[in-house]
Amino acid sequence: MVAGNGEDKLMSDIVTAGILVIGDEILSGRTKDKNIGFIAEYLTNIGIDLKEVRVVSDDEPDIIAALDALRGRYTYVFTTGGIGPTHDDITADAVAKAFGVGIDHHPEVVARFRERFGADLNEARLRMARIPDGADLIQSATILAPGFKIGNVIVMAGVPSIMQAMMDIVAPKLKSGVRMLSESVRANAREGDVGGPLRAIAEAHPDTMIGSYPFLDEGQKPNTNLVVRSRDQEKLNAAMDAVKEMLAGLGTAK
Amino acid sequence: MVAGNGEDKLMSDIVTAGILVIGDEILSGRTKDKNIGFIAEYLTNIGIDLKEVRVVSDDEPDIIAALDALRGRYTYVFTTGGIGPTHDDITADAVAKAFGVGIDHHPEVVARFRERFGADLNEARLRMARIPDGADLIQSATILAPGFKIGNVIVMAGVPSIMQAMMDIVAPKLKSGVRMLSESVRANAREGDVGGPLRAIAEAHPDTMIGSYPFLDEGQKPNTNLVVRSRDQEKLNAAMDAVKEMLAGLGTAK
Repeated sequence: MVAGNGEDKLMSDIVTAGILVIGDEILSGRTKDKNIGFIAEYLTNIGIDLKEVRVVSDDEPDIIAALDALRGRYTYVFTTGGIGPTHDDITADAVAKAFGVGIDHHPEVVARFRERFGADLNEARLRMARIPDGADLIQSATILAPGFKIGNVIVMAGVPSIMQAMMDIVAPKLKSGVRMLSESVRANAREGDVGGPLRAIAEAHPDTMIGSYPFLDEGQKPNTNLVVRSRDQEKLNAAMDAVKEMLAGLGTAK
Repeated sequence: MVAGNGEDKLMSDIVTAGILVIGDEILSGRTKDKNIGFIAEYLTNIGIDLKEVRVVSDDEPDIIAALDALRGRYTYVFTTGGIGPTHDDITADAVAKAFGVGIDHHPEVVARFRERFGADLNEARLRMARIPDGADLIQSATILAPGFKIGNVIVMAGVPSIMQAMMDIVAPKLKSGVRMLSESVRANAREGDVGGPLRAIAEAHPDTMIGSYPFLDEGQKPNTNLVVRSRDQEKLNAAMDAVKEMLAGLGTAK
């Protein structure tokens, strides 16, 4: 939504991402996903635009199809889920197939597992050491089964605390773009009362994105948050000034 | 994952679905989605298999592309978001374009709006009365802006309480399949200890799906929930018996 005219510098600095959540338990509703919201906010904060999310089941063709669609389209793809020790953990194999590379037990991971598990190191646990050829490990002392990065795909655990630790490890190594700036104002008006003037403001400020989010306030009265986003602070300010002026005209501004 | 051999009756009764979440605010992380988990659980309970979820931005070509991919693949598609009164609410128009039909103010909705809003009925609010030609309204006394169903696509609000009211209205009219049955057991074992035997059980019970979900228990010790799912109660029982016998062998069963 950033205009192209004279904006080449900005456009070339835009880094995009997709998320692929893998797991039957999300689609059955048994587990409620907590990773999409976390990664979305994380990426926004480091200047990466999340453009699309997909959730698919533990099914190899489905995983490969979604992965190929996303990795061809965006700068980065973040996957969560399916890297544990059981038969339904097939993400590493699916990623290797998508990239057309082999997959084998990674000697460094196997060595760590031997040290950590001792006699408990069985075939199921060794499964977590299977890493596609050429991938870089995402690991730390507190992470048991490593994630990995291959090409533009970052493969992470489904358990939120582990996924979050992996994001912290991988984030500093990513290209990040010009950060999207954001400011919001509480309208103290119903969404339907601001819709008309807001459209005019959005049209007059093409290098900004203006969003309108209704909610029920403390008194259960319909209210609206208005959010202006832009990569350009001055343009954001100009649009926000126009929004506030419009709200002042309604006699409800805050 | 249900085997085809001799299972024609079951297979033909399988009803599938996709979810399409529409909204920049989800992708920026500003709003944390609560609809995917709710709809997933709801569909499981009425015997509809959720196969895929996508989240896209408030961008017409993106919405149309995702909608076309999902509606061609699954029995039903449920969308949430983008049917409010502001300029960034473009779902109804995108759906009309995807189906190649016109879109106009629906006389019944306009009449209700006139009654409800009186002098406050402005152009922005009238936007919420724009319904694609041939669509059936999803509405009730408590729902302000209606959702609608066109073809196999069910268009709902993004606000969770309204979306949930719409699900209750539309659900009784949907085809539903043979319900997926599910039973779970707490392993009192680490996932890596059950992975091997669990794989053997999964292979011996092809008409069931067996999932393994690690968690930290009350004492912060790694534990695992095992879930067996099947449309056939007897097959589910047989697989669950095998799982429990395996756990008893570990001396950890519960």
